[in-house]
Amino acid sequence: MNGSMMQQPLLISSLLVHAERHHGEQEIVSRRVEGDIHRTTYRELAARSRRMANALARLGVRRGDRVATLAWNGYRHLELYYAVSGSGAVLHTLNPRLHPDQVVWIADHAEDQVLFFDLSFLPLIEAVADRVKTIKAFVAMTDRTRMPASTAIPNLLCYEDLVAGQSDVFDWPTFDENTASSLCYTSGTTGNPKGALYSHRSTMLHTFASALPDALNISAKETILPVVPMFHVNAWGLPYAACMTGAKLVFPGPFLDGKSLHELFESEGVTVSAGVPTVWQGLLAHVEASNASFSTMRRTIIGGSACPPAMMRAFQERYDVQVLHAWGMTELSPLGTACVLKPHQQRLASGQRLAIQAKQGRAVFGVDLKIVGDDGQELPHDGKASGELLVRGPWVIREYFKGEGGDPLVDGWFPTGDVATIDADGFMQITDRSKDVIKSGGEWIGSIDLENIAMAHPGVAMAACIAAKHPKWDERPLLVVVRKPNAELSRGDLLQFYEGKIAKWWTPDDVVFVEGIPLGATGKMQKNKLREQFRDHSLPGA
Amino acid sequence: MNGSMMQQPLLISSLLVHAERHHGEQEIVSRRVEGDIHRTTYRELAARSRRMANALARLGVRRGDRVATLAWNGYRHLELYYAVSGSGAVLHTLNPRLHPDQVVWIADHAEDQVLFFDLSFLPLIEAVADRVKTIKAFVAMTDRTRMPASTAIPNLLCYEDLVAGQSDVFDWPTFDENTASSLCYTSGTTGNPKGALYSHRSTMLHTFASALPDALNISAKETILPVVPMFHVNAWGLPYAACMTGAKLVFPGPFLDGKSLHELFESEGVTVSAGVPTVWQGLLAHVEASNASFSTMRRTIIGGSACPPAMMRAFQERYDVQVLHAWGMTELSPLGTACVLKPHQQRLASGQRLAIQAKQGRAVFGVDLKIVGDDGQELPHDGKASGELLVRGPWVIREYFKGEGGDPLVDGWFPTGDVATIDADGFMQITDRSKDVIKSGGEWIGSIDLENIAMAHPGVAMAACIAAKHPKWDERPLLVVVRKPNAELSRGDLLQFYEGKIAKWWTPDDVVFVEGIPLGATGKMQKNKLREQFRDHSLPGA
Repeated sequence: MNGSMMQQPLLISSLLVHAERHHGEQEIVSRRVEGDIHRTTYRELAARSRRMANALARLGVRRGDRVATLAWNGYRHLELYYAVSGSGAVLHTLNPRLHPDQVVWIADHAEDQVLFFDLSFLPLIEAVADRVKTIKAFVAMTDRTRMPASTAIPNLLCYEDLVAGQSDVFDWPTFDENTASSLCYTSGTTGNPKGALYSHRSTMLHTFASALPDALNISAKETILPVVPMFHVNAWGLPYAACMTGAKLVFPGPFLDGKSLHELFESEGVTVSAGVPTVWQGLLAHVEASNASFSTMRRTIIGGSACPPAMMRAFQERYDVQVLHAWGMTELSPLGTACVLKPHQQRLASGQRLAIQAKQGRAVFGVDLKIVGDDGQELPHDGKASGELLVRGPWVIREYFKGEGGDPLVDGWFPTGDVATIDADGFMQITDRSKDVIKSGGEWIGSIDLENIAMAHPGVAMAACIAAKHPKWDERPLLVVVRKPNAELSRGDLLQFYEGKIAKWWTPDDVVFVEGIPLGATGKMQKNKLREQFRDHSLPGA
Repeated sequence: MNGSMMQQPLLISSLLVHAERHHGEQEIVSRRVEGDIHRTTYRELAARSRRMANALARLGVRRGDRVATLAWNGYRHLELYYAVSGSGAVLHTLNPRLHPDQVVWIADHAEDQVLFFDLSFLPLIEAVADRVKTIKAFVAMTDRTRMPASTAIPNLLCYEDLVAGQSDVFDWPTFDENTASSLCYTSGTTGNPKGALYSHRSTMLHTFASALPDALNISAKETILPVVPMFHVNAWGLPYAACMTGAKLVFPGPFLDGKSLHELFESEGVTVSAGVPTVWQGLLAHVEASNASFSTMRRTIIGGSACPPAMMRAFQERYDVQVLHAWGMTELSPLGTACVLKPHQQRLASGQRLAIQAKQGRAVFGVDLKIVGDDGQELPHDGKASGELLVRGPWVIREYFKGEGGDPLVDGWFPTGDVATIDADGFMQITDRSKDVIKSGGEWIGSIDLENIAMAHPGVAMAACIAAKHPKWDERPLLVVVRKPNAELSRGDLLQFYEGKIAKWWTPDDVVFVEGIPLGATGKMQKNKLREQFRDHSLPGA
């Protein structure tokens, strides 16, 4: 027997309709590629998204067609989030940090029909335009006056012409909530990129869960500046959560340096931001150097990779900005955990609180977590046992786009490739990527702990810990370090810094100083490249 | 083309699984019918719910069967919430304030198979046990030592025996999320009661929405005492939201007097409560008389009927307890709106903020609202135009149980029977029930405004405003008042009290003082009974 409540599919367009009807006057502020500040409202966003939906239909975009973007965080990108998915087409956010060859490969694999791009990516578009196989039109996200004077791009259209040429009357269609809504490729350090194809249902449930008080805690009183890009895992879902709750949105465009971000935080009264640790490093350096502070920022969500404890302390203790550590993956839409302390933890001394905050946090409702040993058996939640992390839930991937890579699931759970502990309060901490773990004499050494200690040294700008071959122990930790400008720091200084902070046998066997550590398209350290580079490194005493 | 995320139905059992795995140690405290305090945890709740699920199967309860409860707020009732719905059966919460004839009528209509009851309702059960047609077993929610010594109830079972006799191993079944989960009858002032049959999907989406920061804002840091009964509209969904978020629950059992509630607030560190205005009146009277305060309570959710402004001021200004005005209906699962101010409203002077807080609030995401005129056309959101309120959303009723009363919808919207305004910020205010509105010379007078003014008079305990017949104006307002004990208050005093507070022609034509105003089973004033009582009242000067 079924219940007798209304049957309404969970559709992304409903977010926009709600924002227009109940938060019509709320602002959306964007720093544009051109450098100026642009202001609009949810009411205007909704009207322009409907115009764009009409334009997409006119361009021949049909249900299920992939429409690609190569764009920064801004209002036009947000319009496409709603116009494309709301129409029943699939928004495919391309990562502009990829090599042109990869962009071509992904666009072909996705069979993109139309590609929208910010003017900063004109050179990239020119490099790929005659190589991609399925794209019928390229749309420059600008107005007529700023269109490129001459270009070899075929079928080049102007975004504002498309919007202006259409009516703002458009009825968002109703369809099955399992319909695909958007597509994001993982940056895969090995093999070809693989696509995560989200549905309206998975996105809507993720939006509900991500806005909860013990997740990202999003409400109409917030002014959100997502530094995390809309071109990667939907800016952690914030463009959807903002519409659901009527929060003010502030978009930084391409200007992600510390000075530009801080200016925007202050001028727009930003209360919450979100990004990866590397971005915050630039911001903190700027704020420190200019002796500035944060007058409205109350918290920042940090994910993508673990937040170094030193960064957490700087934000919280020096600038009174609470850090919310969160964890997710492209395959999780992306949110899996958020590190919101439980009441009994709030009452702990500050050092103990910080130790908990360094963990990735507890499961957001909807996602279940477990860790398993080599035999696949679930390990206890005791904060000590460490095993491969598996997840499941209605916004966790079942298989990759087009079935690439076969069935990734293990008994209905998705193996994350992370190694983690879970404590008795349910707080998960990633100790390593399973492929980065260092296997020394049959025991595992977590590289992230070793990196965090190095990062806490005032002379270290960036540190990666990788496995180096060892004749007796198979593998031993090798620390690869980028010094801060003008920092004097020796191998001995750094090794001594580990004393008393970690089991003696975990101490790296060696330190090498480098000019830079290779970063992937989403800002993560590419340790596979380092391993390749230091494949023949001989450890002292080995 | 569908997305490729995991397919997991939204099932109520997932709330319990989450609470056990991630908030296992969190407390659930109940004042039992016996008067003592009982403590348990989510871990224990989950284990006992699984035992009860096994017991239900043993009793022959199958998917879709209705299992009734006649019970106060307590841990055993909570176990049934999960054991019954989680098994795929339908939890039918009966309202013990109904007349035995109505209980029989509703139990027969619902075709209840088993009835669980708290010992306080033994006399009611004895009155109906041999009259109900489908109930095969009655279960007293107590242990063996407290079982009634002798009774005429056939097939009387003991709750704790059932739990003790079963294994705590039970795999919650997976089924279609549209499956019916629970059933609640409206108390219908006219005609037979009608059932609202909720589904797992509608309940889960309602739970997500109700826990959002701009709705009831439920998180693990809260200690929630729901005064609003679990026997009516699922205690506004709090038993579900608590499990979703790992909040501590405190249940008052049958002890709803001001003294008992206040004791529990203080001893258990309650941070948030929820109930109808009549309950809070008793609480405030007790706190005032005993010169007490609230040391941990930070907010109270008030719904069921409009919160009188005087009560709101008392809570906020005298006791520093924020009032969250909310609105819902049995047919809405029940949440529709919550009165959480927007940032620009937070900056207003306190009098202006109070005027907004007196409204029922803005739409919780998922519910859409509109007001329509007599011609069915949508009226503007200007805070002035007043029309019938219609709602829709995935937890709004599509039709009543067994199709009773035919199709209630108008173009896909559910007509609430309320008359309301909606302002430019989206804040809805109920001005009347459409059947209670007073039609004076072709213009509408809202009875709620007039009642609120009377309630603000220090000598008034309760006030109802009804339409009385008038030869010239058709209807004019008649105020029916219960004086506070020992208050000296005349008709003239009260009429004078309206001066300057309202348009002169809205002033009631007459005042009558009564000993009591009839309340329905959910604590609402039964104005239809008053209208009957004063049908032949002759207004002065008429």
